[in-house]
Amino acid sequence: MIRRIVVAIDESEESMNALSWCLDSLVFQDKPGNNVLVLLYVKPPPPIYSFFDAAEYLFSGDAVAAMEKYGTELVHSAMDRAEAVYRSFSTRIEVERLVGRGDPKDVICHTVKKLKADTLVMGSHGYGFMKRALLGSVSEHCAKKVKCPVVIVKHQDDQH
Amino acid sequence: MIRRIVVAIDESEESMNALSWCLDSLVFQDKPGNNVLVLLYVKPPPPIYSFFDAAEYLFSGDAVAAMEKYGTELVHSAMDRAEAVYRSFSTRIEVERLVGRGDPKDVICHTVKKLKADTLVMGSHGYGFMKRALLGSVSEHCAKKVKCPVVIVKHQDDQH
Repeated sequence: MIRRIVVAIDESEESMNALSWCLDSLVFQDKPGNNVLVLLYVKPPPPIYSFFDAAEYLFSGDAVAAMEKYGTELVHSAMDRAEAVYRSFSTRIEVERLVGRGDPKDVICHTVKKLKADTLVMGSHGYGFMKRALLGSVSEHCAKKVKCPVVIVKHQDDQH
Repeated sequence: MIRRIVVAIDESEESMNALSWCLDSLVFQDKPGNNVLVLLYVKPPPPIYSFFDAAEYLFSGDAVAAMEKYGTELVHSAMDRAEAVYRSFSTRIEVERLVGRGDPKDVICHTVKKLKADTLVMGSHGYGFMKRALLGSVSEHCAKKVKCPVVIVKHQDDQH
């Protein structure tokens, strides 16, 4: 039986802890081949829709391009960190990388449903992009919405 | 390294799913001896404090005793069901049974902290005593409050 585990990552330490926990505790230790790990990063929605400021001033093309570039760098940075976390474990499993775009909570829930994931693992998102960009908790929303088991992992410094 | 996993159970199907998921996915398959499974059931607070009705009428001693007895039967029933779920798996690990008393969300969080649990597994509590007896979601509260990773498992019928 193949088990598909989605780990939602962002640039936060917390999401890397979630990935570590997953590799340490959740991946079948005896049958690593039975696991598929899906690393999911969600970029914010396209700037044309979201980058109006309070005075409804639209960023110039240059600013939009700069922010797009910054967004792409964040994806690479998060994926690179996730790869480093993965490599620090001896278990070798199939890893898929997915980059979604939009409201993280909607994209995560939609992806879990579409992939028929067996488990969703994520940080509580008290940190990182998802916290700063959005009101309300992404993990709280996903825990309510998705049908499969959801694992919420906290920032390591917070632990006992 | 010994890993202590707390599974919060009540009389609901959902909490039995949470236990199944835990035994199936979380318990170290290759090193079952490294896991301690703590089954935690929370009874409602003593009737003397809680069983006033709207007219502030205090239940007679007989009614209190009957409800106490009913509460004790629920504990046994939930623990028996949990044991049956455990026996349906081939993995043999150390199992501890704990019965707490009070507001489930407080008792669960307190127990996790006191035991320095590594993981808390629970149903989302859309069903069962915890849903009926309390406003707000127990799992939501615990996911916010406890420091260790929290796994929230849904009712099986809800899955894709």
